[in-house]
Amino acid sequence: MQIIESIPNFSEGTDMSTVEKILDDFRSSDVRLVDYTFDSDYNRLVVTIIGESRKVKAALLKASDTAITHIDMRKHKGAHPRMGAVDVVPFVPLKGITMKECIELSREYGKELSEAHNVPVFLYDESATSLERRDIDFLRKGEFEGLKEHLKMVKPDFGPAVPHPTAGATITGAREIMVGLNVNLGTSDLKIAKKIAKAIHAKSGGLTYVKAMACEFGEMTQIGMSNVNFRKTPLYRQLELITIEARRYGIQVVSSEFCGLIPLDALLDVCKYYLKVDDLEEKRIIEMNL
Amino acid sequence: MQIIESIPNFSEGTDMSTVEKILDDFRSSDVRLVDYTFDSDYNRLVVTIIGESRKVKAALLKASDTAITHIDMRKHKGAHPRMGAVDVVPFVPLKGITMKECIELSREYGKELSEAHNVPVFLYDESATSLERRDIDFLRKGEFEGLKEHLKMVKPDFGPAVPHPTAGATITGAREIMVGLNVNLGTSDLKIAKKIAKAIHAKSGGLTYVKAMACEFGEMTQIGMSNVNFRKTPLYRQLELITIEARRYGIQVVSSEFCGLIPLDALLDVCKYYLKVDDLEEKRIIEMNL
Repeated sequence: MQIIESIPNFSEGTDMSTVEKILDDFRSSDVRLVDYTFDSDYNRLVVTIIGESRKVKAALLKASDTAITHIDMRKHKGAHPRMGAVDVVPFVPLKGITMKECIELSREYGKELSEAHNVPVFLYDESATSLERRDIDFLRKGEFEGLKEHLKMVKPDFGPAVPHPTAGATITGAREIMVGLNVNLGTSDLKIAKKIAKAIHAKSGGLTYVKAMACEFGEMTQIGMSNVNFRKTPLYRQLELITIEARRYGIQVVSSEFCGLIPLDALLDVCKYYLKVDDLEEKRIIEMNL
Repeated sequence: MQIIESIPNFSEGTDMSTVEKILDDFRSSDVRLVDYTFDSDYNRLVVTIIGESRKVKAALLKASDTAITHIDMRKHKGAHPRMGAVDVVPFVPLKGITMKECIELSREYGKELSEAHNVPVFLYDESATSLERRDIDFLRKGEFEGLKEHLKMVKPDFGPAVPHPTAGATITGAREIMVGLNVNLGTSDLKIAKKIAKAIHAKSGGLTYVKAMACEFGEMTQIGMSNVNFRKTPLYRQLELITIEARRYGIQVVSSEFCGLIPLDALLDVCKYYLKVDDLEEKRIIEMNL
């Protein structure tokens, strides 16, 4: 069994009827619908599914079909960058499947999608055909509104070099699993939270595999982080580094929460660090339910 | 499926041929042999098995048969308290089985063992028929050598009120899972280690569900702990309390190690505490193996 995760992003978070149609495609497929969130600010639906690789690909094609049929990007407004009805479709290897096989799967999905709907498709991250194309921000520069011009310079990997009139373009590709951890700070001062986020964020001198950004969170502020290599940059390092930076301002870490899937190994690393255990033999770990 | 754990103690840690015969009984049974340790100081073999409740009971009866046939308690010397060839046989509920059903299972095992070999059998812990009989130390007072006198005052639950000439008596019963955690201290001073162990140990004012004792451990010292209710007394509390007590003497916690089975929930509690996460939804935790 080759098990993968996908976290497709569809550009619809307002029209409940379309949201439900897309979700129904996953519900009626032989995949596990782990999670979904949508909101009208981002005007986006993010779905998390897990399953056998072929079945996940089939479910994604079915839901993409529904999205392209019902979403009209000409009317779409949303706070999050986006360039298509089916915006981003990542393929993440979980069990019994290599990254190389996931790259191939993303290529198949991209090719089939572009052929079925005449949509331009870009390959990103591990599937990208050049270094700069790995970066999703490079690929979706100008978003849906600038897509026509963008496609003149950045050719799609599949499909025509002109936008689909209502569905724009789609980005797909294989990537490593991403662990989302949000840490809530006992301050409402967004300026301080931003300084702390900057200290964690890879590109500004923080931890190599971590992206971090600050936002308001009720009375508090939140550091939202995604980690693309929890084996090399373990979760406790993110939390402890935030604690150290926050201490300077006399601010406490109040609580945390995970987004999306949580790899068991990432949690075991946390235990090993804090309990100072060198080896947690997996064969001795048992699940109890009484 | 009703899954239980058993950790039978046999009074043989020197004669490899008997040790192997007992282990072979488990290896040839339809149960999982998770772990075993034996040594000549304690002169004892401790086996950890997991499996379907009926199959575990059958494997235990088979191995008990071998132990009673090959072990002669009249010649047995060992540092650990013991009263029989098959010394203690606990039944621990893991999945799909209640404590009540485990109590019943231990009663069946005790009855069948006593009938097969004319061995007196005591029920302890959750299976005990009175409060004082819950305590294993009460039941094995006087050990094998004092068993004849002991049986005059403390009647067995099954079998005759006289010792088996070579196999002594057996203690069995259902109990909660026990999590073993050993913490190594950066000091060779056993006196200090004993003070710290005392601070953790339930009966001397420590944590309710924890037994702790100190011993030498190479250049270091070790606090050996067993926890019989990790849900009420989580593992991080044990570690943090040791850290606090050790700090007073300027001593560091160097490392830790688990003994026996490690319930996943106990590890998740550790993560929740240190990461300050309120809820770790189990359905979002995934095992990856690439």
